[in-house]
Amino acid sequence: VGKSNVPGPCTARLESIEDVVYEQRPIPEISGDQVLVQVKKTGICGSDVHYLVHGRIGDFIVNNPMVLGHESAGIVSKVGPNVKHLKVGDRVAVEPGATCRACDACKSGRYNLCPDIIFAATPPYDGTLGRFYRVPADLAYPLPQGVSLEDGAMMEPLAVGIHSVSNLGGFRANQSIAIFGCGPVGLLCMAVAKALGAKRIIAVDIVPSRLEFAKQYAATATYLPIAPNEGESKIDYSRRNGDAMKQQLGIEDRGTQAIDLVIDASGAEVSIQTAFNIVKSGGTFVQVGMGNPNVTVNLSQLMTKELVYKGSFRYGPGDYPLAIALVAQGKINLKPLVTHRFPFDQAITAFNATRAGKSEDGKGVIKAIISGPDVSTDED
Amino acid sequence: VGKSNVPGPCTARLESIEDVVYEQRPIPEISGDQVLVQVKKTGICGSDVHYLVHGRIGDFIVNNPMVLGHESAGIVSKVGPNVKHLKVGDRVAVEPGATCRACDACKSGRYNLCPDIIFAATPPYDGTLGRFYRVPADLAYPLPQGVSLEDGAMMEPLAVGIHSVSNLGGFRANQSIAIFGCGPVGLLCMAVAKALGAKRIIAVDIVPSRLEFAKQYAATATYLPIAPNEGESKIDYSRRNGDAMKQQLGIEDRGTQAIDLVIDASGAEVSIQTAFNIVKSGGTFVQVGMGNPNVTVNLSQLMTKELVYKGSFRYGPGDYPLAIALVAQGKINLKPLVTHRFPFDQAITAFNATRAGKSEDGKGVIKAIISGPDVSTDED
Amino acid sequence: VGKSNVPGPCTARLESIEDVVYEQRPIPEISGDQVLVQVKKTGICGSDVHYLVHGRIGDFIVNNPMVLGHESAGIVSKVGPNVKHLKVGDRVAVEPGATCRACDACKSGRYNLCPDIIFAATPPYDGTLGRFYRVPADLAYPLPQGVSLEDGAMMEPLAVGIHSVSNLGGFRANQSIAIFGCGPVGLLCMAVAKALGAKRIIAVDIVPSRLEFAKQYAATATYLPIAPNEGESKIDYSRRNGDAMKQQLGIEDRGTQAIDLVIDASGAEVSIQTAFNIVKSGGTFVQVGMGNPNVTVNLSQLMTKELVYKGSFRYGPGDYPLAIALVAQGKINLKPLVTHRFPFDQAITAFNATRAGKSEDGKGVIKAIISGPDVSTDED
Amino acid sequence: VGKSNVPGPCTARLESIEDVVYEQRPIPEISGDQVLVQVKKTGICGSDVHYLVHGRIGDFIVNNPMVLGHESAGIVSKVGPNVKHLKVGDRVAVEPGATCRACDACKSGRYNLCPDIIFAATPPYDGTLGRFYRVPADLAYPLPQGVSLEDGAMMEPLAVGIHSVSNLGGFRANQSIAIFGCGPVGLLCMAVAKALGAKRIIAVDIVPSRLEFAKQYAATATYLPIAPNEGESKIDYSRRNGDAMKQQLGIEDRGTQAIDLVIDASGAEVSIQTAFNIVKSGGTFVQVGMGNPNVTVNLSQLMTKELVYKGSFRYGPGDYPLAIALVAQGKINLKPLVTHRFPFDQAITAFNATRAGKSEDGKGVIKAIISGPDVSTDED
Ligand SMILES: NC(=O)c1ccc[n+]([C@@H]2O[C@H](COP(=O)([O-])OP(=O)(O)OC[C@H]3O[C@@H](n4cnc5c(N)ncnc54)[C@H](O)[C@@H]3O)[C@@H](O)[C@H]2O)c1
Ligand SMILES: NC(=O)c1ccc[n+]([C@@H]2O[C@H](COP(=O)([O-])OP(=O)(O)OC[C@H]3O[C@@H](n4cnc5c(N)ncnc54)[C@H](O)[C@@H]3O)[C@@H](O)[C@H]2O)c1
Ligand SMILES: NC(=O)c1ccc[n+]([C@@H]2O[C@H](COP(=O)([O-])OP(=O)(O)OC[C@H]3O[C@@H](n4cnc5c(N)ncnc54)[C@H](O)[C@@H]3O)[C@@H](O)[C@H]2O)c1
Ligand SMILES: NC(=O)c1ccc[n+]([C@@H]2O[C@H](COP(=O)([O-])OP(=O)(O)OC[C@H]3O[C@@H](n4cnc5c(N)ncnc54)[C@H](O)[C@@H]3O)[C@@H](O)[C@H]2O)c1
Ligand SMILES: [Zn+2]
Ligand SMILES: [Zn+2]
Ligand SMILES: [Zn+2]
Ligand SMILES: [Zn+2]
Repeated sequence: VGKSNVPGPCTARLESIEDVVYEQRPIPEISGDQVLVQVKKTGICGSDVHYLVHGRIGDFIVNNPMVLGHESAGIVSKVGPNVKHLKVGDRVAVEPGATCRACDACKSGRYNLCPDIIFAATPPYDGTLGRFYRVPADLAYPLPQGVSLEDGAMMEPLAVGIHSVSNLGGFRANQSIAIFGCGPVGLLCMAVAKALGAKRIIAVDIVPSRLEFAKQYAATATYLPIAPNEGESKIDYSRRNGDAMKQQLGIEDRGTQAIDLVIDASGAEVSIQTAFNIVKSGGTFVQVGMGNPNVTVNLSQLMTKELVYKGSFRYGPGDYPLAIALVAQGKINLKPLVTHRFPFDQAITAFNATRAGKSEDGKGVIKAIISGPDVSTDED
Repeated sequence: VGKSNVPGPCTARLESIEDVVYEQRPIPEISGDQVLVQVKKTGICGSDVHYLVHGRIGDFIVNNPMVLGHESAGIVSKVGPNVKHLKVGDRVAVEPGATCRACDACKSGRYNLCPDIIFAATPPYDGTLGRFYRVPADLAYPLPQGVSLEDGAMMEPLAVGIHSVSNLGGFRANQSIAIFGCGPVGLLCMAVAKALGAKRIIAVDIVPSRLEFAKQYAATATYLPIAPNEGESKIDYSRRNGDAMKQQLGIEDRGTQAIDLVIDASGAEVSIQTAFNIVKSGGTFVQVGMGNPNVTVNLSQLMTKELVYKGSFRYGPGDYPLAIALVAQGKINLKPLVTHRFPFDQAITAFNATRAGKSEDGKGVIKAIISGPDVSTDED
Repeated sequence: VGKSNVPGPCTARLESIEDVVYEQRPIPEISGDQVLVQVKKTGICGSDVHYLVHGRIGDFIVNNPMVLGHESAGIVSKVGPNVKHLKVGDRVAVEPGATCRACDACKSGRYNLCPDIIFAATPPYDGTLGRFYRVPADLAYPLPQGVSLEDGAMMEPLAVGIHSVSNLGGFRANQSIAIFGCGPVGLLCMAVAKALGAKRIIAVDIVPSRLEFAKQYAATATYLPIAPNEGESKIDYSRRNGDAMKQQLGIEDRGTQAIDLVIDASGAEVSIQTAFNIVKSGGTFVQVGMGNPNVTVNLSQLMTKELVYKGSFRYGPGDYPLAIALVAQGKINLKPLVTHRFPFDQAITAFNATRAGKSEDGKGVIKAIISGPDVSTDED
Repeated sequence: VGKSNVPGPCTARLESIEDVVYEQRPIPEISGDQVLVQVKKTGICGSDVHYLVHGRIGDFIVNNPMVLGHESAGIVSKVGPNVKHLKVGDRVAVEPGATCRACDACKSGRYNLCPDIIFAATPPYDGTLGRFYRVPADLAYPLPQGVSLEDGAMMEPLAVGIHSVSNLGGFRANQSIAIFGCGPVGLLCMAVAKALGAKRIIAVDIVPSRLEFAKQYAATATYLPIAPNEGESKIDYSRRNGDAMKQQLGIEDRGTQAIDLVIDASGAEVSIQTAFNIVKSGGTFVQVGMGNPNVTVNLSQLMTKELVYKGSFRYGPGDYPLAIALVAQGKINLKPLVTHRFPFDQAITAFNATRAGKSEDGKGVIKAIISGPDVSTDED
């Protein structure tokens, strides 16, 4: 049941827009510092779907066929001669960006800004959605006991949450956070905030079922944006919306009722605008969501509140280890987020469900996991 | 010559839009921790002119008559009984914002965010443009020898530059900076960057004479924005403009040719947009200029470069002292910026010249200084 | 039962070494920004005992009679006319250091370094151990529901823990900490580390019962120092002791088994020396305990591990609020620490028990609380 | 004159204590990311002499013959196939520590703490004092025009100064610094402080001629420690010495006359003790000098002033680039520090002069440079 019978080393490759094909591939050679990981579980991310549907994300354009997938965990199947901390058979989460290790960014602790990063499923580099994936050994993180391979696949989006909330947001115990967007990334940001000892976690989404999910999962309160008025500009709407949100939830500009940190994980312009309104004087706003690149923001708020508005890009030093540790310690529970599981040969169905936001049976998708070519969907 | 003969304690008060009147006022009483400063020199700031012309700045509305002016220096004329570090006759620069000293912002080192700040010439509080101004003693900073009263009046806008470049921008020796806007604030930001050991200071303005001034004063290079195309959106223009600027000046996204810090001191939307384009990967952008509150920015740049975009509001702990020290040490020369001097009874002429950007003789205004009611414009 | 019947406003005053007398005092007048607190509960601190026994702590010498006590909570009994956030009858914790609010330290967010601080029971200033204590209103923190007056009295030592662990130590979720000394301060540091999401909390003490207490309370592991060899120098002993500790507890210099932060809350030279040995490469060591002022440390460790060694002095902005919030949220439980309660007229017995480390019945003292002159020891 | 005629690839190798021999070595092979540098100029460092005389530094013990030298510059003579930014013939400064690039320290921006660093002339790794040295290409920094090869050799100790003053010390314009020890490292710390815009640079040494040198070079004031009293403990002496220094130079604990940062570059216990006394409340003390590992310090000072005491170990990301840039911009002049020059075959004379602190003609040594085997001492 749910076990793919595609033979040999194989991948699900994006051939052209909307066209995924399966193909056999040679098993990659590894060098001294690398390991070969047999991929067991891969989560589907909005960006995979975006490449599938649009063939590009901003300036990253898929010109040649490309294997999709970058949220993966698996079993170490080969180990380079210099590798000490791993052995064949180890269960690992894969950090999917190999960096140059020699540029200023890499050396100064910001390797996610490395211009030469080889990131899985970002053109022109192949992704992880195949039988094997090759990585530098330090990017294969052993999974502690009690952390499943599915959990391991979820470490990638969780690391995005860690990076934005803990690292860039500097979030600490007893602080309050508002998170716009209750997709997997927003929900994981909430999970991180909770694990770090948040006082208040406010979830915002335009889809009531997602708010409901957030409330069950990690939020202490939710907010459903008000309806815009006819002909109202976005910025006017957002001022009203922010005021309504403040009033409804008793949010203030300063003091114990203030919001220390806002995360946008929706990419929606009105979320971003509203965020400037509700964040506290002296507060921080971390931008994670990517939507329309050009967004109108209110600079009076930025200035008179001396806000710090930071872009968040993937994850960096320490983010994967913290993600894994918080899950291992039970401070973050990833299991409720995996709503769908597909065998390898149903990858296309999986993409379609993620794209539609629900499977054919109408069940809402948070995260769909595709099992490796030879893995049952029952194993986790 | 140029000495006002308005009698007694008097002020230049904004009665209603475009209407400044002189009036007699009682000499203010001081309490134990305060000093009374006889105002000798006051710089005119764009915000004074703005209140004069529009009667408001954003949410700050002049509902009642208000004395203008907040860039002042003078002589201590009375000292409260608890004051130890000042005596009658001391020459001082006045920091024009008295804070509550008890709120979270005040106690945590961010007093410029105090909600109860009493800021000169921000409604409903009277400004400094009178014979006397009363301040808490710690806001009256003694001027070292060699620092003139006119220099003292300039400490206020210089503190804005210190706060944004040194404090929020964290600017350090051998870094590169680009500054949009070559008005007094932008020029002072350049002066600060130079004093801190900048490698490269790029000045941007749409007025060639201001670029010329910047070059003479502190910039190592200048940039005159390209012309927009017909019908081109601001954001499209700004991308082209940023690309042209990068090419013309050999600016790169990383490495030694990159721009570590950008300051916008123009408030122009296209400046802000261009800034996002030219700042380096991992760089910082501090917003000082206030123009149209709603500005469209490119979030792809914010995110993929993990920019930090900070609002700058006035100045805080340590900014006045550093401003005064850098001038006293000769690392910043304020004198070239004072282009115009007016006696007290010509305050209205001074406002008009600042508003027009030039005096009647056609000379461009950078900073106009109004002398106190009983002070010659020749004394500095 | 346990209710003192000393009449009128009264205090327990340190007359000279080892001599505490009760005396009547006039009720203090308050100014506009102050409140008068009727003191209900006061914890005894080692420093109170130290002044009692030695008449001095370092350069602070008790030359004139001085009221003891600085860990207090009570009820607001009078409110200055400018005070808005408090009313008569409010239950409050008292932060016992009133600062000048105008010096560089006060303005830059480090008010604990104010040279003009008026700190309760630090000579020449009277402490809180009387019927009334007068404070600036912002230093009287309302106690949320569920937080008792005894808890309120404990906020002072808890703020010491917050300051050292959270603020100076920058401790974050999933980090590991070792704490030397399991007196009230060390235990509260553990409580803070636990509330902030510590992975590992190692308690060290030479008294096994205190280790036992720590284990019950908040530590994940304990360490009892090895015995010194005959004639062994302290530094040699400490190297052996650190090595033994590392081996026994599996502590490493780097990676997941490393200690990110060490707190010394013992003041013992050998603790401090051992701490340098066990803290990780790149780690932080915060000194809270005060013992012999002159201590020999190993600078090879400081340098090759690039340690940061910080002195911690009392508490500063945000420490009291965070202490109160963590208790109110149930993340820190103060109740187990209060081992002894005394009525006001048995203050001397309370001091003696604290000094001896146990009451006459042999029960070990962690924290003894003295109730106010008119308060039952049963109320908490 | 002064050109060594030792044939072929050769090195000056430490055979055993006090025994340096010359020997022929094969030219090293390089891998794809490496370059081969023909060494032209090498500075002698105290640690080279220390290994020569004692055969060890702390736990680093020379068990096998080892080539000395780690302060070198030269000409690129071979370039690995992956190297882009260098070509044969480029003049480069060599950063002598190759790190693993994969451990937590390397990835988080603290590569000097890498446990697997291969550091030139730290046992068991050979140093640079030969005809060729092989390094990863990113550790060979091109020297800008106007920066000589001798300057290039000096970048290594200058990077130590950059790391401690700018990076760890966070030194900024208008701050004051005191530096104990006026050897090459102390002097270079002064040069860095000056380049960063120091207000006051106080040099301390027990050798008057070194103070004189410091004064000429970069210090604004000097201090010659007072004589100890007979039988006085070091800590007592240091308290007196610190008090005398404060009085003589008008140093205060707070405000404009305070010392923001202290650097110890002497390793002397009394310097370190004095430093705790004279640094300001809230100040920073960076330990660079290595002397007796066990040093007695005053923790009262550490605590009541909330000092931050940091160990400094070599240098990390950005330190070499900043060193080179400040020299290229003329903000630091390295030439006065090179007091002695020796041809390769007089290496032993050079070591002896450095060890004695003066050459046979009695001239004091600050820095002695040994030219490469085929290089004239006249070229710089
Ligand atoms: N910065 C990074 O490194 C990084 C990494 C991964 C994902 N992302 C981005 O993070 C975002 C979230 O990712 P995801 O996988 O959770 O996506 P998702 O599409 O599943 O979730 C987005 C959520 O935002 C909600 N939303 C839409 N408009 C809204 C509005 N006006 N107000 C409030 N909520 C609104 C949607 O209903 C949805 O629940 C995406 O934009 C993605 O591109 C960024
Ligand atoms: N953040 C704060 O606390 C603070 C304090 C003081 C002033 N300000 C603001 O700083 C800004 C500068 O103040 P100022 O007194 O120097 O004003 P100013 O008007 O004298 O200078 C603005 C300069 O920007 C130039 N400019 C306009 N459009 C431009 C464009 N598209 N590109 C480049 N340059 C352009 C103008 O030609 C002018 O030289 C103002 O917006 C003011 O409100 C902010
Ligand atoms: N920095 C500050 O602002 C501040 C504030 C309050 C208290 N303190 C200091 O904190 C320290 C702790 O205060 P407390 O009230 O908990 O004191 P305490 O005396 O109750 O506790 C000290 C503990 O250290 C233990 N100890 C003694 N020698 C030891 C050793 N060699 N190894 C391990 N443990 C050892 C003792 O057994 C005791 O349990 C005191 O030195 C006090 O002066 C500092
Ligand atoms: N931390 C690091 O990474 C690093 C790197 C290089 C060097 N170092 C160390 O830095 C120190 C300085 O190196 P250097 O090459 O300049 O050495 P050096 O021996 O030439 O200079 C030391 C100076 O300190 C002076 N001195 C000695 N006792 C003193 C005292 N009591 N008070 C004031 N001055 C005193 C000496 O007279 C001498 O001028 C050495 O200890 C060295 O080991 C550390
Ligand atoms: Zn890189
Ligand atoms: Zn305030
Ligand atoms: Zn103060
Ligand atoms: Zn490493």
